[in-house]
Amino acid sequence: MTREIEKQLSAHQEQYKNRGILLVRCPDQPGIIAAVSRFLFQYSANIIDSSQYSTNPEGGDFFIRIEFACEDLQQKKEEIKTSFKAIAENFSMDWKMNFPSEVKRTAIFASKELHCLRELLFEWQSGDLITDIAVVVSNHETARELVEGFGIPFVHIQASKENRSEAEAAQLKILQDYEIDVIVLARYMQILTPAFVEAHPKQIINIHHSFLPAFVGARPYDRAYQRGVKLIGATAHYVTNDLDEGPIIEQDIERVNHRDNIENMKKIGRSIERRVLARAVKWHLEDRIIVDGNKTIVF
Amino acid sequence: MTREIEKQLSAHQEQYKNRGILLVRCPDQPGIIAAVSRFLFQYSANIIDSSQYSTNPEGGDFFIRIEFACEDLQQKKEEIKTSFKAIAENFSMDWKMNFPSEVKRTAIFASKELHCLRELLFEWQSGDLITDIAVVVSNHETARELVEGFGIPFVHIQASKENRSEAEAAQLKILQDYEIDVIVLARYMQILTPAFVEAHPKQIINIHHSFLPAFVGARPYDRAYQRGVKLIGATAHYVTNDLDEGPIIEQDIERVNHRDNIENMKKIGRSIERRVLARAVKWHLEDRIIVDGNKTIVF
Amino acid sequence: MTREIEKQLSAHQEQYKNRGILLVRCPDQPGIIAAVSRFLFQYSANIIDSSQYSTNPEGGDFFIRIEFACEDLQQKKEEIKTSFKAIAENFSMDWKMNFPSEVKRTAIFASKELHCLRELLFEWQSGDLITDIAVVVSNHETARELVEGFGIPFVHIQASKENRSEAEAAQLKILQDYEIDVIVLARYMQILTPAFVEAHPKQIINIHHSFLPAFVGARPYDRAYQRGVKLIGATAHYVTNDLDEGPIIEQDIERVNHRDNIENMKKIGRSIERRVLARAVKWHLEDRIIVDGNKTIVF
Amino acid sequence: MTREIEKQLSAHQEQYKNRGILLVRCPDQPGIIAAVSRFLFQYSANIIDSSQYSTNPEGGDFFIRIEFACEDLQQKKEEIKTSFKAIAENFSMDWKMNFPSEVKRTAIFASKELHCLRELLFEWQSGDLITDIAVVVSNHETARELVEGFGIPFVHIQASKENRSEAEAAQLKILQDYEIDVIVLARYMQILTPAFVEAHPKQIINIHHSFLPAFVGARPYDRAYQRGVKLIGATAHYVTNDLDEGPIIEQDIERVNHRDNIENMKKIGRSIERRVLARAVKWHLEDRIIVDGNKTIVF
Repeated sequence: MTREIEKQLSAHQEQYKNRGILLVRCPDQPGIIAAVSRFLFQYSANIIDSSQYSTNPEGGDFFIRIEFACEDLQQKKEEIKTSFKAIAENFSMDWKMNFPSEVKRTAIFASKELHCLRELLFEWQSGDLITDIAVVVSNHETARELVEGFGIPFVHIQASKENRSEAEAAQLKILQDYEIDVIVLARYMQILTPAFVEAHPKQIINIHHSFLPAFVGARPYDRAYQRGVKLIGATAHYVTNDLDEGPIIEQDIERVNHRDNIENMKKIGRSIERRVLARAVKWHLEDRIIVDGNKTIVF
Repeated sequence: MTREIEKQLSAHQEQYKNRGILLVRCPDQPGIIAAVSRFLFQYSANIIDSSQYSTNPEGGDFFIRIEFACEDLQQKKEEIKTSFKAIAENFSMDWKMNFPSEVKRTAIFASKELHCLRELLFEWQSGDLITDIAVVVSNHETARELVEGFGIPFVHIQASKENRSEAEAAQLKILQDYEIDVIVLARYMQILTPAFVEAHPKQIINIHHSFLPAFVGARPYDRAYQRGVKLIGATAHYVTNDLDEGPIIEQDIERVNHRDNIENMKKIGRSIERRVLARAVKWHLEDRIIVDGNKTIVF
Repeated sequence: MTREIEKQLSAHQEQYKNRGILLVRCPDQPGIIAAVSRFLFQYSANIIDSSQYSTNPEGGDFFIRIEFACEDLQQKKEEIKTSFKAIAENFSMDWKMNFPSEVKRTAIFASKELHCLRELLFEWQSGDLITDIAVVVSNHETARELVEGFGIPFVHIQASKENRSEAEAAQLKILQDYEIDVIVLARYMQILTPAFVEAHPKQIINIHHSFLPAFVGARPYDRAYQRGVKLIGATAHYVTNDLDEGPIIEQDIERVNHRDNIENMKKIGRSIERRVLARAVKWHLEDRIIVDGNKTIVF
Repeated sequence: MTREIEKQLSAHQEQYKNRGILLVRCPDQPGIIAAVSRFLFQYSANIIDSSQYSTNPEGGDFFIRIEFACEDLQQKKEEIKTSFKAIAENFSMDWKMNFPSEVKRTAIFASKELHCLRELLFEWQSGDLITDIAVVVSNHETARELVEGFGIPFVHIQASKENRSEAEAAQLKILQDYEIDVIVLARYMQILTPAFVEAHPKQIINIHHSFLPAFVGARPYDRAYQRGVKLIGATAHYVTNDLDEGPIIEQDIERVNHRDNIENMKKIGRSIERRVLARAVKWHLEDRIIVDGNKTIVF
């Protein structure tokens, strides 16, 4: 990490030292908000922002994200977390309480196409992506100079169909060593094994270069060109063991026309991929996403 | 109103007979959500949807929209409203509680260009705009056949700079007779007097055919063409006594290029105006908007 | 047709009486534009607008659309057409020369969902769709009042899987009787037989309620909801015998989020379908489209 | 320039060594296209792409961009240029003939906000911006490391209201020394004198951080926030001596809402500025733009 980025992160931690974020999912019933808001009020916490969603008020699921501010939170946060358990149990909540001052640690997996990696580094350097990019892993050397220029460790792990298990063993060790919270596949192009994916549920974000579910799988721009579509797109999603079938976080598109050959579509596509992935990662880092089966709720 | 639309409205009233919407604005302080949610819980009301916004958690303003469901609401709603006053006073709230089953009564003001009027009637007929369009007022006869075809009274009131006060007197009488809640200026093209506007605060929605604050005033498409812009737009806003300066509800744009002459820009613009106005009216009818000075909060 | 629309069409025919449009497709080679422009120059025709496209300058296909103005065109047009044949043969052209004053005759096929039909009638009435809507055919009575209100003949032909061949025989007779050039399926929802489709190559435009190739087939909004997409869309395409696989003319999308249930998606989708279909029909009527295999070139 | 980018540029020059681009503006009259296409045919040049536009077929202006391919162009290009003069005179043409193999030399002027500079370097490195970025000039040291990392000379010239004439003298010398064709103001934030601007007509591209003509001048995001707009935008334009009034090349927008404070608007705005400026510079480098008074024609 460069000194400039270090200073940005410290400033962020200072600014948000009294902030907490509560993410909840539970069966819907009257009284949830009353209970949670009374709880926070007891700790003199002020609700800064809250968003909720009910799949179906009669007997569906209830989701809420609450951002709160509370003086001297650093001293009180463990106590708050502990005493929230009673409410959580009462309402059968699936929940977590995070603190923006505890910056998440990110690993980026890259390959030879660097536009998504560059965009993330770019946004990071601009202070628009609050995280500690702890390591970049790649199966090629292409990104080394770029990555090391940002003061980030770059680890080359040769990976292919043939050596998948050894490669993943090496990758898993890296993730452990660097205490990684989030893995971003920035056009990594290698398929991960079920074991790897299951070890990181809702922690791996991938960018697919089409608007899913159109053009699942390989060579989406070639197929978009063949089909004569008038829009091309990109999709950021959590990785599951069904290829390109994980919960979608964000999608976007651009117009194309008959003049755009495959090469052009790829150029246009790169700019879509960049912004879609950057938004998805940002929302994940800001604890804005709750996964609901194969869907995401983005607050 | 045609029988088909009457049936739609009745179905809506039946479906939403137990729903209430609370809109609040007050100085921010801890405990507001706790107090409101406890209040609703006491009436066994389930919070279906809630959105809040704080301008500044330390000493700013707090805004919330809560949609709740409550059995036998029709019997209880007056009591709920009355007993809410204590909380409202406690927190110095500016508030209202509306009920979707009490359908708002709308007057549309039109002139010779009918695309916005048609769009509203279209969306109304499709069931996408829940209101009672009680009357259409126009300073021309152009829309009579269209309007009467929908079973809506059409009132022609000649209006120009010269007879403004008589015209407005006649219009005000119509608004009173029809017990109007919302006035939509669907390309009405006449300026209203301060007296008229002040009599209907936050109740008059206008569509301006540019993305404000660009091209305030007359002939925006001509001026957009002269300036060589690459985007044209439209803006729906509440009417205040500063021409085209009222709180903006919604804006949208489309791309244009050098081939688009003024006539073309008007064509493209019509489709933007239609959808921008329809969205703004819809949000107003659904009680999604809180006006904050010269801005809107759209929940 | 109402008198107002009749007047608009007459005005259009007068305004464009000296305009011609040439659409060409041929193997690429040097000299095509030189030959065509010299030809037009000999007739004192001024090229108003021209667009061209080459799939691949070396040995690919060449496409051009030329709009020209020529004094006394009505007297000369047959001669121009005839004498162009020599050039066309020379370059192995697939071509047509149309005249905007010869207004195309359109049949709209509708069913019970009327938003697309209404949009076309709306745009037609506003003068934004230059055609003679000669007849509306439907397998339900729902649209009769609306259609007849515009002075357009409405023909109810009951159609289902069971009576497909009789229904199509009746439809084909109608198309013949009304001398139809363009058939628009405005959410017609019935599958047409190969015989019907082949009798009208590149003449039938359909609107599909998804961004193809995602969600081919039935119930696309339900499936979009299940998949948790963040964008929904619509696609206008020429009908071929492969369901939803014909050449795409236009597509567009809107954002949705977790709050949008299927009903909401349908509402949002209706506004996308309306504008996508209206644009596609407009471009077809203005002779802007050349079909190239399974793609369209829209000039 | 890094070796990687050098290789890309060489590959481009080789690929396009036989390509030429003709840009023409002249009074409209029949026969222009015939004359030009015959001329190119005589040199066995194949028209790869052509776009034209007439402001008004009767007595207006005519604009055309023709991209042609011609074997052994490098040997013939001077002859073609010379012999075109006869046609150009005949039709009173304002014209230029450029060759993609003659890569334009660009100077970027930057200041302390680096997102636009970074985007241009990013696109350049990805091969999406074909130019020789010969020098970066800045009135701050902030960008030095970034720029020199790309192997580009970085020149710091202190500039403020007080020393404008000396600063511009130094800048002009740099532009001359580096034989600059295009100047890009990538959030340079200093006003240029008329003398400087007039010395580089249609050669200076600026990015303004609003959708012009809204929010001309300083602090547009602050003013957008105050006005409560629902869209913010950016505009790339050629610099003239009327502040923010030069011919617009490209504009784009993003949605904002009441939750977006000024800081947020700036973040969102940065991503709009980046892509709008990158597109405008790309179109300029590809000789796609003809300036027509205060408008641009972008082919």
